[in-house]
Amino acid sequence: MAEQGIAPELILRGLGGGALVGYGALRVMDSYVIQTDANDSLPSVLGVHVNIGGRSSMQGRMKGRKARWTVRPSDMSNKTFNPIRAIVDNMKVKPNPNKTVISLSIGDPTVFGNLPTDPEVTQAVKDALDSGKYNGYAPSIGIDDGLGGRLTESDWHTMCRVIPESKGYLSSREEVASYYHCPEAPLEAKDVILTSGCSQAIELCLAVLANPGQNILIPRPGFSLYRTLAESMGIEVKLYNLLPEKSWEIDLKQLESLIDEKTACLIVNNPSNPCGSVFSKRHLQKILAVAERQCVPILADEIYGDMVFSDQKFEPLATLSTNVPILSCGGLAKRWLVPGWRLGWILIHDRRDIFGNEIRDGLVKLSQRILGPCTIVQGALKSVLQRTPQEFYHDTLSFLKSNAELCYGALAAIPGLQPVRPSGAMYLMVGIEMEHFPEFENDVEFTERLIAEQSVHCLPATCFEYPNFFRVVITVPEVMMLEACSRIQEFCEQHYHCAEGSQEECDK
Amino acid sequence: MAEQGIAPELILRGLGGGALVGYGALRVMDSYVIQTDANDSLPSVLGVHVNIGGRSSMQGRMKGRKARWTVRPSDMSNKTFNPIRAIVDNMKVKPNPNKTVISLSIGDPTVFGNLPTDPEVTQAVKDALDSGKYNGYAPSIGIDDGLGGRLTESDWHTMCRVIPESKGYLSSREEVASYYHCPEAPLEAKDVILTSGCSQAIELCLAVLANPGQNILIPRPGFSLYRTLAESMGIEVKLYNLLPEKSWEIDLKQLESLIDEKTACLIVNNPSNPCGSVFSKRHLQKILAVAERQCVPILADEIYGDMVFSDQKFEPLATLSTNVPILSCGGLAKRWLVPGWRLGWILIHDRRDIFGNEIRDGLVKLSQRILGPCTIVQGALKSVLQRTPQEFYHDTLSFLKSNAELCYGALAAIPGLQPVRPSGAMYLMVGIEMEHFPEFENDVEFTERLIAEQSVHCLPATCFEYPNFFRVVITVPEVMMLEACSRIQEFCEQHYHCAEGSQEECDK
Repeated sequence: MAEQGIAPELILRGLGGGALVGYGALRVMDSYVIQTDANDSLPSVLGVHVNIGGRSSMQGRMKGRKARWTVRPSDMSNKTFNPIRAIVDNMKVKPNPNKTVISLSIGDPTVFGNLPTDPEVTQAVKDALDSGKYNGYAPSIGIDDGLGGRLTESDWHTMCRVIPESKGYLSSREEVASYYHCPEAPLEAKDVILTSGCSQAIELCLAVLANPGQNILIPRPGFSLYRTLAESMGIEVKLYNLLPEKSWEIDLKQLESLIDEKTACLIVNNPSNPCGSVFSKRHLQKILAVAERQCVPILADEIYGDMVFSDQKFEPLATLSTNVPILSCGGLAKRWLVPGWRLGWILIHDRRDIFGNEIRDGLVKLSQRILGPCTIVQGALKSVLQRTPQEFYHDTLSFLKSNAELCYGALAAIPGLQPVRPSGAMYLMVGIEMEHFPEFENDVEFTERLIAEQSVHCLPATCFEYPNFFRVVITVPEVMMLEACSRIQEFCEQHYHCAEGSQEECDK
Repeated sequence: MAEQGIAPELILRGLGGGALVGYGALRVMDSYVIQTDANDSLPSVLGVHVNIGGRSSMQGRMKGRKARWTVRPSDMSNKTFNPIRAIVDNMKVKPNPNKTVISLSIGDPTVFGNLPTDPEVTQAVKDALDSGKYNGYAPSIGIDDGLGGRLTESDWHTMCRVIPESKGYLSSREEVASYYHCPEAPLEAKDVILTSGCSQAIELCLAVLANPGQNILIPRPGFSLYRTLAESMGIEVKLYNLLPEKSWEIDLKQLESLIDEKTACLIVNNPSNPCGSVFSKRHLQKILAVAERQCVPILADEIYGDMVFSDQKFEPLATLSTNVPILSCGGLAKRWLVPGWRLGWILIHDRRDIFGNEIRDGLVKLSQRILGPCTIVQGALKSVLQRTPQEFYHDTLSFLKSNAELCYGALAAIPGLQPVRPSGAMYLMVGIEMEHFPEFENDVEFTERLIAEQSVHCLPATCFEYPNFFRVVITVPEVMMLEACSRIQEFCEQHYHCAEGSQEECDK
């Protein structure tokens, strides 16, 4: 573990509060304690004590009878661990009371009100509501498909479908299929599963592809949900490296060296959270070559698909390979700026029939657990995809690009910081030359002090398993972005020290 | 492998094609070939050949490398089994082409259009949309709570909440808490977790309470989702009996006899699907006494709560005990007639602090996997709960009661059938005196023939693990209900035989 990154135990211990024992301990030890600061008044940081003691007393009681209340959360719940929460909840600093808080940490473009969705999108949901056709469970052929009173045999089979079609309305799946269909990667309704947000899409893909004891490959730095979901299911994660000096391209050799017989899938996140990077066609082809050579299917997290700046092009991974089976996850959240609506999808690309019906059926079976996403949003999909004006997409991207450039330019001029220029999504990663900030032990301390002194909140990239960087969210209004950069500059200037042997640099 | 399905070699070999040597293979092993048809122009029908030349050569390959495509669904996916689907998909009969199909099988009140939700409910969602405040992830304190530009310390903690509050908007949870709060079972926002439908509520409760290898107690007859979810998680189910002769009360002795050290929870479904029964206060108290004696927490599936006919009273389980920790699951689906909207909840009742923060935190952690239900429905909750007129609830229940009486009366008059009078929910169970229908082996065959001859579709209660009954959904329009009952009568009259030694009865 340690050579692949910071061991979770180490990450957690550095953060103050009580002694946080890594979750890996749960399976191993008989008697362990998870402690957080029990005096804190916020419910989310209330203390958790897990004591498994006295096995002998259990053995002594009457067989077949429970003698006392011992209600304990399951192993799965204990293993559902979000590193961001652990780190952020332990950042026990107060912002500077004399400065308004500016949060560059929330990956939700709707927070500041400056990026509303398009009126067509809202209207589409109202129309779905008014139709009255989208209040029930989605059947495989819906009442919206114009069935008459006397049913044909095939209609009859529909009526026999007493089980809700958890993968979504046929008409809605057809819309998504036709929207993302292209000759290089054809799609039909049967290739689409609608989910409760992209998070559930990822969950279902992992749940169908991997058994406990297998492993998946995830990017470092990367979105923390991959690890959270995998480990809760007993699936091991292996981290492959993204290279900041190559605009966060994958270290392909290192990636390939991680693959073994237990590797169930490779997660490729493009465009990237937290990097804001966009892979070139050529790089994607190299990734596909690794997957093909090693026979590893790909989970393509493309929730930021098409969210690339004007000088870039987004290439859906599935358009570049006929041989590698790909589950592409996406949704309305980011591009249509409605993350709360929880409408995601899985696009199944399997032209070599490697997934076959088994994986398709497996995904449908798993989706039955919660019966699909909200039907009124499903009912709005057709209009959302067909009627949202091009200007809406264009305006969003123009804003993001402009803010990204502004932020990149401002931070690049600050001694001690090394921002990496983003090409898409909503993020930007900034390297901290820690040798120039000897007061701070790491990125967590750096960002803590940035809060305490400047009331600017950025996520330390330790949250993404990538120490000594921090992530900036670029969806904030321009004036806030400017003010934040100016405060970061002031902060860095106050704490910058010349590293030993680099006096020359400091004199510049 | 072969006993679990077709071996991958067999699947893949069937597809034809030319020869293309996988270059990855060259590095890994000497003798394996991936073949595809390089001349084929239709990507979707391209074949894949995986030839593994002898097992001995496999053993010779470099450790840690994958040699061929073997993508298999996970055990969890394989274990996610819906008995209804298995039974219904195997009912290979066609309806009578001369009779319109009448489906009494779909547990979705919106299917026939005769039970629309209230206009206030629809308006509430439109208002939430128009406000523009419910498009993002739900924070623990929302922008709807009127935060100003300069944040207080507690506001600051909110801004630090870079992780979406997957348990739902605080204001929405407050509304649910205050709606269901009562002196006997007080609730605050912290006791409420909003979920993607009641299905997810049940899933989270099971996932937090039980480990693989433990067991849960579920009713027979009962809703099939309990088993589906539990077995997919490796949790054993034990069936306790409901007694039709006692209006489907629980056989408490048998229930108690099932409890052992591995029992993680007891599921109580009241009002009941598929029975339409409503437990009396006295019976609920007896159930609670068992749980308290045996120290077993209760998952109360109360999705049909308050849906009881005028002469009955629904008692929320948690109002009757201060000692037994209870997770009550509910949602908008049935009472507000919008099952597709996927807005459910868990109400945590734990006045003895037996669940404690561990179970609460566990539920929140598990809810982070898919980040909560659709926010526009969350935003509508306040108006839905406060503004839906009493007449709406009253009218729905009047209709259901009237239809239930009509159906019960008609079926009770049919020789060979023994309907059990329902008191709530949307269902009615009908016993089949199989000895009077010797042509049919069981309820599945009985309902199959009912389809073939009368085009009336009812679910055989084998779907609910209760043979020789069938379930009738009472939400269909009255005229359909009457027609269906008349056809069932015709069907029964045509197939009724006097049982041996009961000539007397037949003469009546």
